[in-house]
Amino acid sequence: MHKLFSAQSLVVVGVSESEDNLGKNIVSNLIRFGYQGTIQAVGPSGGQVLGRTIHRSVADISEPTDLAVILTPARFIPEIMAECGKKGIRRAVIESGGFRELGPEGEEIEKQLLEICTRFGIRFIGPNCIGLINTKTGLYTPFIALPSAYRQGKASVFAQSGGVGLSFGERLSTSGIGVNKLVSMGNKLSLDETDYLTFLLDDPETEIIYLYLEDFKRGREFAEAARKSSKPIILHKSNTSSLSRAIAQSHTAALAGDDAIVDAVCRESGIVRVHSVAEAINAMRGFSMPVLRGTNLAVVSRSGGHAVVAADACARHGFQLPKLNEKLLETVQKKLRAGVIRLGNPMDLGDLYDLSFYFSVVENLLRQENIDGIILIQVSHMAADCEASKRLLQELWELSWKYGKPVALVVEIPFKERVQLLESTEFPFFSEPVQAVEALSLQWQYAKAAASRSGEPLPASRFDRDTEVAAWLRTFQTESRQPLLHEAFDLMDKVGIPTAPWQMTENISDALEAVRAMGFPVALKAVGQSLLHKSEKGAVALNIASEQKLEKEWHRLTSLAADVAGVLVQKMVSSTRELIIGGKRDPYFGPVVLAGLGGIMVEVLKDIRIRLAPIGAEEAACMFQELSGSRLLGRFRGMPEADMETASRILARVSQLMDRFPQISGLDLNPVSLKDDGKGTVALDARLLLKHS
Amino acid sequence: MHKLFSAQSLVVVGVSESEDNLGKNIVSNLIRFGYQGTIQAVGPSGGQVLGRTIHRSVADISEPTDLAVILTPARFIPEIMAECGKKGIRRAVIESGGFRELGPEGEEIEKQLLEICTRFGIRFIGPNCIGLINTKTGLYTPFIALPSAYRQGKASVFAQSGGVGLSFGERLSTSGIGVNKLVSMGNKLSLDETDYLTFLLDDPETEIIYLYLEDFKRGREFAEAARKSSKPIILHKSNTSSLSRAIAQSHTAALAGDDAIVDAVCRESGIVRVHSVAEAINAMRGFSMPVLRGTNLAVVSRSGGHAVVAADACARHGFQLPKLNEKLLETVQKKLRAGVIRLGNPMDLGDLYDLSFYFSVVENLLRQENIDGIILIQVSHMAADCEASKRLLQELWELSWKYGKPVALVVEIPFKERVQLLESTEFPFFSEPVQAVEALSLQWQYAKAAASRSGEPLPASRFDRDTEVAAWLRTFQTESRQPLLHEAFDLMDKVGIPTAPWQMTENISDALEAVRAMGFPVALKAVGQSLLHKSEKGAVALNIASEQKLEKEWHRLTSLAADVAGVLVQKMVSSTRELIIGGKRDPYFGPVVLAGLGGIMVEVLKDIRIRLAPIGAEEAACMFQELSGSRLLGRFRGMPEADMETASRILARVSQLMDRFPQISGLDLNPVSLKDDGKGTVALDARLLLKHS
Repeated sequence: MHKLFSAQSLVVVGVSESEDNLGKNIVSNLIRFGYQGTIQAVGPSGGQVLGRTIHRSVADISEPTDLAVILTPARFIPEIMAECGKKGIRRAVIESGGFRELGPEGEEIEKQLLEICTRFGIRFIGPNCIGLINTKTGLYTPFIALPSAYRQGKASVFAQSGGVGLSFGERLSTSGIGVNKLVSMGNKLSLDETDYLTFLLDDPETEIIYLYLEDFKRGREFAEAARKSSKPIILHKSNTSSLSRAIAQSHTAALAGDDAIVDAVCRESGIVRVHSVAEAINAMRGFSMPVLRGTNLAVVSRSGGHAVVAADACARHGFQLPKLNEKLLETVQKKLRAGVIRLGNPMDLGDLYDLSFYFSVVENLLRQENIDGIILIQVSHMAADCEASKRLLQELWELSWKYGKPVALVVEIPFKERVQLLESTEFPFFSEPVQAVEALSLQWQYAKAAASRSGEPLPASRFDRDTEVAAWLRTFQTESRQPLLHEAFDLMDKVGIPTAPWQMTENISDALEAVRAMGFPVALKAVGQSLLHKSEKGAVALNIASEQKLEKEWHRLTSLAADVAGVLVQKMVSSTRELIIGGKRDPYFGPVVLAGLGGIMVEVLKDIRIRLAPIGAEEAACMFQELSGSRLLGRFRGMPEADMETASRILARVSQLMDRFPQISGLDLNPVSLKDDGKGTVALDARLLLKHS
Repeated sequence: MHKLFSAQSLVVVGVSESEDNLGKNIVSNLIRFGYQGTIQAVGPSGGQVLGRTIHRSVADISEPTDLAVILTPARFIPEIMAECGKKGIRRAVIESGGFRELGPEGEEIEKQLLEICTRFGIRFIGPNCIGLINTKTGLYTPFIALPSAYRQGKASVFAQSGGVGLSFGERLSTSGIGVNKLVSMGNKLSLDETDYLTFLLDDPETEIIYLYLEDFKRGREFAEAARKSSKPIILHKSNTSSLSRAIAQSHTAALAGDDAIVDAVCRESGIVRVHSVAEAINAMRGFSMPVLRGTNLAVVSRSGGHAVVAADACARHGFQLPKLNEKLLETVQKKLRAGVIRLGNPMDLGDLYDLSFYFSVVENLLRQENIDGIILIQVSHMAADCEASKRLLQELWELSWKYGKPVALVVEIPFKERVQLLESTEFPFFSEPVQAVEALSLQWQYAKAAASRSGEPLPASRFDRDTEVAAWLRTFQTESRQPLLHEAFDLMDKVGIPTAPWQMTENISDALEAVRAMGFPVALKAVGQSLLHKSEKGAVALNIASEQKLEKEWHRLTSLAADVAGVLVQKMVSSTRELIIGGKRDPYFGPVVLAGLGGIMVEVLKDIRIRLAPIGAEEAACMFQELSGSRLLGRFRGMPEADMETASRILARVSQLMDRFPQISGLDLNPVSLKDDGKGTVALDARLLLKHS
């Protein structure tokens, strides 16, 4: 990938002399933004472009070439690619649309294209994109005549949509953050999000990573790469709704994934997930500052109102505003003009206009051990002192790095001055206190999570009775059917997941015998293929406490459907609390597990946690602790602590089962009855779904 | 208040020739921004300011004067005010600080000031503020040399903090919204938030109201005024945290209220509560557009990525993107250049650069009955077509009003062009799709809530046994003590709030007799002054089912504290669900009621609703329906619907009790046991707190 960004020579294919030729814009951008490598042009009509010859074919170019940038109708591209291959070109950007997103014809072209690229070992960006930008070398491949070069900086923007990518380039250039590299990924036919992320993690020039994705090609690999990252990754994963699916299909042939899984992956891998441009830019402002080492802040403001708003935001985000050094307060008090302001933290410097004094106040605060960071609110509604303001801000920014503590600069100056500052600044600032606090909070949360993340890969699944389970699963594949309830229970028993005592019965005398062994009360569950995907309504009878009731219900259940294979008799287990534990196979992220509190917490409040499988018992315990209602699992309302050890072991076991046996597409244990005494935590129901290939 | 904004003549008091005199800035602002009224200046040293004589005293001015703007040290102000009074001046702006916020001395000055103002019938803005702005008349009283006049518009900004007010003035001037009137309220010694709101509701020039408040002086009156408003009110109520309390005390002598009550008041009165400038400005953008009449939107975009993000946001906010008219789609399809984009809703017009065609697409959509509003995403990264873009946007804005449907304009253009547009525009636009959807959503929610709000005042409380209850309450005031548990139950019985059968017993034989009457199982509760504010731990014994157990627990409970007056024996009532119902008296908003689901829903999830008291039973029922967990009260997990009729009656009754008897400062019924059968819904516990004046 490095070769893409460091290309010393390139050829633009699809250039003509025509007025509205877009290829020409590519050549023009490269020249205007100072690309120092060789630029060659190719187009079937030949001619001249910006003083360069347009060669009629890639075969005609003479110079050795690192990179081909292609913008021709899709149907010509396989052939062009073959010519590139023959010329020794191994990297390309395919900007044209008209592939998979347009249907079968486009898919056929894709197939040819991939075949040729595999043959020659060519990797490419796109198709259906605007390519890449490297601000350092002036390498700009977009076919849009950009008004000016981007400001250089440390953030790289890799976006599936070219429009979104360019919007970001523009914003970052005028926000004090700056752009390092920019890619529009397009259809990700060759290089995908995981390739790009892997590159960025190693790219020494990129310090902050922003990704805009509409889908994942290799979600699991992406997650694995992200969890090892030492750089902040900000992700906008869109295309989450059924409404946007229509256009995403068309736009970059994206398929909507399961959004809850994306959320879980972000949490697990330390990815900052955003949903808007404003949120993303603000996160990047936060990551551009020195990192907080604690939660004690000082707020220094020229406006009392802004200081109050800042303090509110600090409280909301869990920051403290400790008392400030008495000596400093005295010094400031003496300086105050009208003497009408009481000082504290926040410190309202209202009518104090001596900016060099602001500098010394901030430096004094940075020296104090009980201050981890500062929010400096520079308000000036007078045009007059804007130049001085700007100098002060630059000095404070440098001071912030000198002391290694963040000084979040909130700047409230008149519009014209703000615009000037945005155009010229080399450091980010905030336009209101709430932004600054949010950015600091995000940065702090990120650093805390990063410290607790091991960076270890997912644990390996160990299974003792591997062969036996595999054989058991194979029988269903052979018979091409799904396991029935008692068969699912049977698998649980095999893999060591405790279940409430159960017995499958095919006649009433077996049922009575089973009850005599396990004792009343029992539950009866009708078992049959046609009952598998139905709601349980009517197919279950609970709390059967007499032989008479049992007989009656047994007969009712067996007559529910023609294919009832029998009735499962199960010991009723009483419990104070219940869990739901499940596994699911996601097409992009592979096996995942889910944990939640049963009953109203999951049904009404959707209080669940998701992780990539497999996980160990420790991680499983964390999932339960992270539930909003986790308090319910401890000593609560007179109940002792729930048996979370067994529960965690069950969850980990489910995760290993999902990981080890790809033929399992889903498993639900709902509910799992939690015993308080540490014994008897068992699954009361099990639904197993297999994938028959 | 009208006279403040329409003042034809004014005097600025506190002007001098000195270099850093702030009064001079006031005179200068007035002249520069075209104020046509008479401007006179007063200052003890006399001299000249901007060609005007500085009179030495208010007594010396000759012209009749509508308004005095005062910026002198606080201690001189009472005397100056008296002079104003004698001159017939009845309106003033006091900009000086140095009052209550500085302690006892300042409070004394306030007292004198108020006395004089009452004598002469003077009402004033401030103190500790920057006064007012009326953009229409050029009346600008801030003592800060503002760089330029604000752009006129329909939004008025009334802020407790001058800094926050000016920030808004600046933002609104460069956002296409514009400013009508602006006030910095300061300490609100004379005119308070309710005065300002009442004025704004009647002001024909103000269409959108923005308020920044750090406290309420008359919260209840404010809420009553707001609920009758036909104009959107956007409120930033800050000073919510203990962190900001320190500076708010100092800044405008604000006292922090109870934030949950503010939230409840906003919900109830249709006030849009915001927590940041960005949120407020975006809300105002939304309210500047024609009002949505339904939730069907069309998204038209020049960038597929932006369209996907817009569709995501639409789905999150409950909007639909219906199928578009086939004919329109065909027309567009023909126009598309490369033919590589599939059309739908969102409609990605990717490579279509003919802007007049955009206009006709939008007009076509506006004509369609199944489209209630449009999000138009105009992306242009080329400097070249920005002028054309701007014309298109202006035309679309007019089209939006012509059809009475909102066209939310999302504009992604290069920085310089965006700045130019912001400076010159007369209409608001959005800088990313998410903003537009949020603004439309807010507008839609607001309109829906407004339609369902009756605008009726709070209902009157009717009480049959008024005198009896009042007398009962008086006994505690006489004895200067709080009611004990059995006494609280006694009041509940008096006012018709059902309680579980109970009896206060002072010896074990009474207790046994009580149980014989009500039957086992029972609960025992120790009653005593010292147990009132303690956690219930240990002072309650539940599920007593035998005489032996009863005796044992009775003795334990009576030996808990020296002042145990007896043991309350109460019938144990079983219930599937429980509620918490309570009342509280807020210093700013008066009596309020609270409702929540008992047990984990309130303890773990803080799922509660608050309303100003009194309310009727219908409103009470709404409060329960609004709970996040309200599903639990319906048919849920085999349980029938809970008896919400009795519950609503109890809640309404509590609200009336709180309203009618100001000596009650709090009442908690926790839990209230809900019967499914519609009979027997009763309070199991009652805590009553009285205020002894």
